[in-house]
Amino acid sequence: MALLVQKYGGTSIGSSDRIKAVAERIGKYLDDGHQVVVVVSAMSGETNRLLELGRSVAENPQARELDVLLASGEQVTIALLSMALAERGYPARSYLGDQVQIQTDANHGRARILSIDTDAIRGDLDRGIVPVIAGFQGVDDDGNLTTLGRGGSDTTAVAVAAKLKVDECHICTDVDGVYTADPRIVDTARRLEQITFEEMLELASLGSKVLTPRSVQFAGKYNVPLRVVSSFEQGPGTLITTEKNTMEQPIVSGIAYARDEAKITMSGVPDVPGVASRILGPVARVPTEVDMIVQNTGADGTTDFTFTVKRDDYDHTLGLLEKVREELGARELSGDNRIAKVSVVGVGMRSHAGVASRLFDALAAENINILMISTSEIKISVVIAERYLELAVRCMHSEFDLAHDDVDGG
Amino acid sequence: MALLVQKYGGTSIGSSDRIKAVAERIGKYLDDGHQVVVVVSAMSGETNRLLELGRSVAENPQARELDVLLASGEQVTIALLSMALAERGYPARSYLGDQVQIQTDANHGRARILSIDTDAIRGDLDRGIVPVIAGFQGVDDDGNLTTLGRGGSDTTAVAVAAKLKVDECHICTDVDGVYTADPRIVDTARRLEQITFEEMLELASLGSKVLTPRSVQFAGKYNVPLRVVSSFEQGPGTLITTEKNTMEQPIVSGIAYARDEAKITMSGVPDVPGVASRILGPVARVPTEVDMIVQNTGADGTTDFTFTVKRDDYDHTLGLLEKVREELGARELSGDNRIAKVSVVGVGMRSHAGVASRLFDALAAENINILMISTSEIKISVVIAERYLELAVRCMHSEFDLAHDDVDGG
Repeated sequence: MALLVQKYGGTSIGSSDRIKAVAERIGKYLDDGHQVVVVVSAMSGETNRLLELGRSVAENPQARELDVLLASGEQVTIALLSMALAERGYPARSYLGDQVQIQTDANHGRARILSIDTDAIRGDLDRGIVPVIAGFQGVDDDGNLTTLGRGGSDTTAVAVAAKLKVDECHICTDVDGVYTADPRIVDTARRLEQITFEEMLELASLGSKVLTPRSVQFAGKYNVPLRVVSSFEQGPGTLITTEKNTMEQPIVSGIAYARDEAKITMSGVPDVPGVASRILGPVARVPTEVDMIVQNTGADGTTDFTFTVKRDDYDHTLGLLEKVREELGARELSGDNRIAKVSVVGVGMRSHAGVASRLFDALAAENINILMISTSEIKISVVIAERYLELAVRCMHSEFDLAHDDVDGG
Repeated sequence: MALLVQKYGGTSIGSSDRIKAVAERIGKYLDDGHQVVVVVSAMSGETNRLLELGRSVAENPQARELDVLLASGEQVTIALLSMALAERGYPARSYLGDQVQIQTDANHGRARILSIDTDAIRGDLDRGIVPVIAGFQGVDDDGNLTTLGRGGSDTTAVAVAAKLKVDECHICTDVDGVYTADPRIVDTARRLEQITFEEMLELASLGSKVLTPRSVQFAGKYNVPLRVVSSFEQGPGTLITTEKNTMEQPIVSGIAYARDEAKITMSGVPDVPGVASRILGPVARVPTEVDMIVQNTGADGTTDFTFTVKRDDYDHTLGLLEKVREELGARELSGDNRIAKVSVVGVGMRSHAGVASRLFDALAAENINILMISTSEIKISVVIAERYLELAVRCMHSEFDLAHDDVDGG
């Protein structure tokens, strides 16, 4: 018998039928003798519908009221799921963010959880009642509703799991685990039995949509065993944990990609201190998310400065930088909004030299030109022309033999 | 400068455009120097949509969770209206039922308000902020969400108005006031400048849909001046108050009707004590709303017992009573589900004899047969065949000269 937190979101509870199926699924765990605390997000599409409603009455909706508006989405699902559970003979009780005292700071739209009062939840569990908690929302010190930002329900689930010291926190989603690569691109992609928090964090940050980086980081910090499982079918999913139970690590665990990227280059910038902040300062103030940054110094005392942004921010950022170029007396501003980023991730890289060169060789063999490179201890990212994306993912997957579950990766 | 509570509901806030129009309307009152506290219900259709969602996941939704579900409707509107007000330069702040501490008993779906904490609202008013309060919802002693039942937003508005001792409580609706009769039936129907709580209570109970009897009763008890006004256009509406400012009362203030009625008669019932409760007991337990009740004793020691119910309850009630008829040894069970009730209401009746006979004469002159009669101090109701409904309303309107605003009614 285990104590579990299970989080269901989006399409998993996107209709009455899906909510009933989720109630059935939770019932099976209860029948097996487990204790389950449920965290849900809004029905898929609901958050966008509410956002549009907000924008239709105000061009600049107030952050406080936007949170009140958005928090109504989870209120609907906790009530529906509790009803569906009770109807099947599993007593359940819904909790809004303020009813379970998910105390947050006052940053509307991106609040951080400060504390959770789990007394009522423990009382329910003791009495055989399933607590169904609204994810994504909390309440600040003054009693104002807050929301945690996109993917906030995962964060709520992990926070509740950490506080309750559960055996596992299940993130129930529309895929049945974490894969070595996107199965839509690589048909030999393989579901991973286990992956470390560090690897998952890199994968999540690098474009894998299964989990948000924030919830992985949170789970790692409090050492909450996370399991990504399908909410549609039974299966072991992928366990995210501190240490793998295998003797040796594979060099590379998985491949992630981000398609909608763009790069901007300012060439012939006078090479004086403070140039980077003169260029990125105005961009950061918008704020625009800047990902990779590369700076090369040329022979003529000038430097070339390149960075990547999300494709949606490309035009805007180019416009912003034209003024900066003039001020700096830089030669040229150029860019490319048809690029993609592909990354290999694995804790095994730490102890294996030569991963980078194997990767570059493999890409070269396919005539794929590398535009930018960025590395960390457990990942290597390359920026390439978007049209080579699928080819690059497949060639890396094959190079590191990810289709097979052996440990030497070769 | 006045302190006002304004309640907007249903179609008044049924779309983004309507919400923006309501924000404009509130802004005009603020521009004129008034202080306004707003109470809103859910957008029209939203409560039904949520109810259907609930029924789609559970045949017998739990009352507690149904309240959580339904309360999300007002949460959306308070946020949207607050945003729309702020966008127009009128600072606003939304309040959920529990944020303004609308404390209720624990009767889910039909909770009664016990207390309201208006400190935060007064603070807002002092700082020039418009408080926008979710109607219909509250919170019980254990922190569970509750709802007040259909029309509950009116009750919230009146309760807030009573607590704040406002100058007027405006019920903003899709009609521009209370009429002497339904303008769709009587083209000379006239908007009343004023009406007493007692009269309004009778009109509301008798089928006028403008206000719920509960909110009128509540307003009367705490002497809150209510004004029914259009939320679409400017106008004085109808003031509902304890005393009219006119020297003399008109005999009749208005005419109400209820179309969907049915009557059931049990004839030849042995005339012994306890017969009424033997007949109505099983009906009341369902529960079915029983309206008029008439009992006549015949010469043969038996009695005829007749009562009216809503037309929807007709078949069911007839079925229920067939068993009772057998048990009692009554002669016959019969009924008519094509009847309607028409009522004249007016505090002036108290001091004027002969209203009933004028009414009966007028109906007789039109060859309208009266099936049942019920009277109170300030109203006379008659049950007639439904096909005469419009004719009866027009003939009463004319008999008491309601098209003209003079006081002797004749």
